[in-house]
This record gives sequence, structure tokens and C-alpha cells, in this order.
Amino acid sequence: MRIALDALGSDNCPDPEVQAALQAASEFKDEILLVGPENQLRPKLGSQNGSSAGVQIIDAPEAITMEDKGLKLALKAKRRNAKNSMAVGIDLLKNNQADAYITAGNTGGALATAYYRLGLIKGLERPGLTALFPVKDGHAVVLDIGANPDCKPEHIYQFAIMGSIYAQKVLGVKDPRIGLLSNGEETGKGNQLVRDTSPLLEASTMNFIGNIEGKELFGGQVDVAVMDGFTGNILLKSSEAVAKLLIDTLREELMSSFRTKLGAAMAKPAFSVIRKMLDPAEVGAAPLLGVDGLVFIGHGRSNAYALVSAIRVARQAVEANLLSAIRDAIEEQLISQPELEAS
Amino acid sequence: MRIALDALGSDNCPDPEVQAALQAASEFKDEILLVGPENQLRPKLGSQNGSSAGVQIIDAPEAITMEDKGLKLALKAKRRNAKNSMAVGIDLLKNNQADAYITAGNTGGALATAYYRLGLIKGLERPGLTALFPVKDGHAVVLDIGANPDCKPEHIYQFAIMGSIYAQKVLGVKDPRIGLLSNGEETGKGNQLVRDTSPLLEASTMNFIGNIEGKELFGGQVDVAVMDGFTGNILLKSSEAVAKLLIDTLREELMSSFRTKLGAAMAKPAFSVIRKMLDPAEVGAAPLLGVDGLVFIGHGRSNAYALVSAIRVARQAVEANLLSAIRDAIEEQLISQPELEAS
Repeated sequence: MRIALDALGSDNCPDPEVQAALQAASEFKDEILLVGPENQLRPKLGSQNGSSAGVQIIDAPEAITMEDKGLKLALKAKRRNAKNSMAVGIDLLKNNQADAYITAGNTGGALATAYYRLGLIKGLERPGLTALFPVKDGHAVVLDIGANPDCKPEHIYQFAIMGSIYAQKVLGVKDPRIGLLSNGEETGKGNQLVRDTSPLLEASTMNFIGNIEGKELFGGQVDVAVMDGFTGNILLKSSEAVAKLLIDTLREELMSSFRTKLGAAMAKPAFSVIRKMLDPAEVGAAPLLGVDGLVFIGHGRSNAYALVSAIRVARQAVEANLLSAIRDAIEEQLISQPELEAS
Repeated sequence: MRIALDALGSDNCPDPEVQAALQAASEFKDEILLVGPENQLRPKLGSQNGSSAGVQIIDAPEAITMEDKGLKLALKAKRRNAKNSMAVGIDLLKNNQADAYITAGNTGGALATAYYRLGLIKGLERPGLTALFPVKDGHAVVLDIGANPDCKPEHIYQFAIMGSIYAQKVLGVKDPRIGLLSNGEETGKGNQLVRDTSPLLEASTMNFIGNIEGKELFGGQVDVAVMDGFTGNILLKSSEAVAKLLIDTLREELMSSFRTKLGAAMAKPAFSVIRKMLDPAEVGAAPLLGVDGLVFIGHGRSNAYALVSAIRVARQAVEANLLSAIRDAIEEQLISQPELEAS
């Protein structure tokens, strides 16, 4: 198995990437392809642990940065001979030189690069950006979290197929429970898009449990939650912001007196559980579902530990043949869709 | 000033309502009209504090309950001679027998009853359900949180007008900063609805600071956040669910060992701040903006303390002439709208 890792992804790149590549190569015995400027990476690779066994540098002298957007980003993502580490890394997938690609860089950049260079899985209309949300006693697969601000019912239907396959194949959930995020659980509730999507999911063979609200999602009652990319993005960012507000306020209050400081010190193990629950490093990376190749996107704040987790997730997807499973599921759905529409 | 209070609103009604009515009448020296079944309320009123000074019972033998929905709810809300405590209470506004109406009952019921019996402020297209969100160092006015799952840009524009007036008149914010919730702060980001709404707000005389994400809202960078009712409802319920997940997990972990229990006991003042921040009782009630009368909706879990807070908020709205201020602002906007559309 060959896993390609963007050396220019994380906020502190390339050190966490170099370290993660070496650790993963040693831990998993896979070949790690570290994609970035060879002249920068070579000395670092030599200097870490005194060994670069299992890590191969793929030269990519340029980068897509967090500042790239709009036309400039599109050009960097699309250009045939692009030398940035996303284009070079994703081309490895296209040319069967790598089985999965991981980046902790610009999400829009990874999306655009993968979309232009790999295309979509046949029969699929839109790719879905995915996140693993911490929920009660586990995680839920949530998509789309921002690739498609405006969706049609068929897009959300396909997100459900992909999310369900991902939960099955990579997270090991037997019969993933799927929920459609709405403003109320009753059928018939929702905006027009939800009211049009709900019947498609009802008529499918998927384990659709119905419309859900935040309490079902964060209460751990579904394995997969689907929605349009605008709603998903608001859900993701607002959840992060609420968590931050609570934790910051609590921290401030705990530091406000000697007594509460002491109490906080004693209660530290409990706070560590919360920190771990909210730490993106624990999840490692989430897949960009729907493009015709295995692309995983990690958090910009990823450290080496997070990147090794990301590599672990990517390996599981490769081993589980995630891509063919999604291809098959989408093809199957295409055949059965006329019936769905008639029902 | 006469404030009408639904005696059949809260989950534990009517005891919290009776208590709140007596407290408010004594604290504010206003007349409180307690709307509910006289035969039930009369004995309770006598038995509390030995005095019913300032509290008048308005007989309404029936109720709109949390189970009422759909056609049944519409009939209860609409029927001319309806005897439920929402219809009777809201008719007091219509007949100038009360200045504001407060209920902690079925939100959809209050919305429907107010909409059918009071109608909308002239020139207004949709009412906006409002919530006060706890944010860094204060609160933000958020609307629509669910009255209108499908909105047009003009509706959101009018939500901004009403939210801005509310923040000014009732919360005392000088020049309220208004944000449009979106999946990214840059102009041009957003779904179609946001991209169409943003220019209307830009062209207005309101203090529109642009598109915002969850971090600006919860970080306290706006006084008013506007969005369609589907998005607002998801925002509200997901935020509540995230907060609950965090608090529940923390509580569980804190109770898991003697050491953390002791730490938690010492750090209690800090936790109390968080509890207070998230307690809907602190806010009291949020206005249903846009109907032609002052209607406030409190949380179902409201206790007497929360209901007194609600009455306090309603009084401020009456004193500030909120309704005429909104009427004037909407009229003004109607006159200037052609220019807006041309810009």
C-alpha cells in the first residue's frame, strides 16, 4: 500500500508531516510518499530519527496556500503541469502510483484539485465534503459540510449512499442509521429541499430513520447525517463556536479564584476527556467523498499525531476497498432510480 | 401598563404563572392579566401570599397544548370564539385591553394564533421568530429561528430591520451590528438565498457588517444575526444539543472519581456561571416580531423567575414603543425599497 501525504498542508508544515511520515512508515510498514519540495524535505528527513526507511519524497516545489481562492486557486488546481503539492499528490492517485492522498491544507484547494484532476465517480452528481462529528459515545459521519451550498434532492440522496458506505466500510458500522437534518422530526417538516429529499430516502433500501434535529445527531442516534452544504457548513462552524465559547468561559471562570483553580486542577482528568472529544487530531482526517480517488482532508492544526491518525483512516479505506464500494453503490442506485422516482 | 400572561403555557403550569403574576404585579406595580381557567386559578391566586393585588384573571377554560399541530392547531388559533388561553390572551391585545402578551407554551401555537388574530404589521411579508443567544459577553438577537423554513431575500431583509429595532429599543444597543449567517465571511459566499440577500443589506442604511459564521455570532461580534427560518432553527437546536453534550459529558466525567468530584465541588462557582449563561430563564422570553401586537414567547421549562424576567422584557418593549418603532421602520423601508432594488 502506498499512501501519499501532502508535506505542505498543516499550519506548521512540513515538520509534523515529516515526523508523521516516518512514524507511519515504521508503524504500518507501508510506503509513505511525502509530497513537497525535495530540497526542503530531504535534509529534514535525514535529521529525524536518523532514518528515512519507507518514506519516499515526491518533489513538488510549490504549494496551494490558505490564501489561494477563486480563479487563482482554480488555475493552481487545474493546470496540467501544476507543481504544487496537491496537484502532484493527487496525480499520483490518478496514475495509480498511490492508493490514497492526505492533506491538512486548504480544504477548498483539495476539493478543487481532486475534482479537476480525478473527476467524479461515474453516475455521481456532486462530491461531498465529510466531517466526523463527536457525538454521544462515538462519532457521526456528516455531509455535505460545504462543497455544495446549493443542492438538489438527488445530491443529498447520493450523500446518504456515500456516507452509509463510508460508515460501513471504514468505521465498521453494520447497518448505518441515516438521518436527514431538518427543523423538526416529523415527515412533512423542513424547507422545500428537505421535503423533496425525505421521500427519496424513505423509498430507498438504506436504513433511513427519518428527519432529525441537533439532539438526535449529537445524542448519537444516527451514524450518518446528511444535508446540503450550506446547512452542513453552518452546523459545523456553529457547533465549533458554541463549544469554544463554553470552554473559554469555563476556563476563564475556573482561573478567576484560588479555590476554583485548585478545583480545576483536581478535576483535570474530566477536562482532558472533553478536550480529547473535541480534538480534531483524534479523528485524523475525513474523506472527500465522490471524487474518483481516495482523498482525505485533515485539520489545519494537525500535528504529527493527528497526521498518523489520518494515515490510519486512509489505510482502512484502502483496505476496505472504499472506492469500489462507492462506485458499485452509485451504479446500483442509478439502475434503481427510475423506480424510486415512480414511487 | 397591562401585561397579559398565559396561565397555561409552561410545562408546570399554572403554578409558576400564578406566582410570577403576583410577583410582577408587586414588583412593577402594573396590572397583570392572568389568562386561563378561572375556576382553577381563583383558588390558587387566593392561596399565594394571601393577596391577589394587581392580578386580574381573564377566563379562558381551554388550552393550546404541545400536542396540537396541523389543522387542529390552525382551527384552535383561528376560530372566532376560541376559548383557549392563547386566543383569549391575544384578543386582549387586539382589543387594546392589554399592551403585551406572554406565553411559555407551544411556539407554533403562539405564532399561528398571533398571525391569525393580529395579522402582520403593514408592509411586512413574514413574521420572525426570535431568540436571544448567549454569546461572548452578552446576547445576540437571532431571527428567524423557525417561523419560515423557506424565505425570500426580502423576508430576511425585513428580519434585519425588526431585529435591529428590537436591539436598539429593548436591549439598548446604540447602532446594532447586523450579520447575515453564511458559510464563509467573504461577499459572494453563501447559498443562492444569501448571495441575493447580502446586496440588499449592503445597500441599506442599517449597520450591516457583512456575512458572518458561527465564530462571529458566538464571539459576540454582532448584535443581530439574520437567516432563513430553516437555517435558524438548525442553528438554535444544534447549539443547544452541542452545549448539552458537552455539559453532560463533563458532568459524567466529574462524577467518575472521588478526586474529580471534590475538584468539581470546589470549582462550583465556575460551573454556575456556565449554567446561568445557558439558562433560558435569564433571558425570560423572546419576541415574535412582525405580528401587529407585542407577543413574547418563553421557554417551556420556565419557572416563576423566568416568567418574571419575561414580563420585565415585555414591559421594556411597551415602554420603548417597540411596535410603533417597527411599524415606522417598515413603512420607511417600503418607501425606500425601489431605490434599493435599483442599486
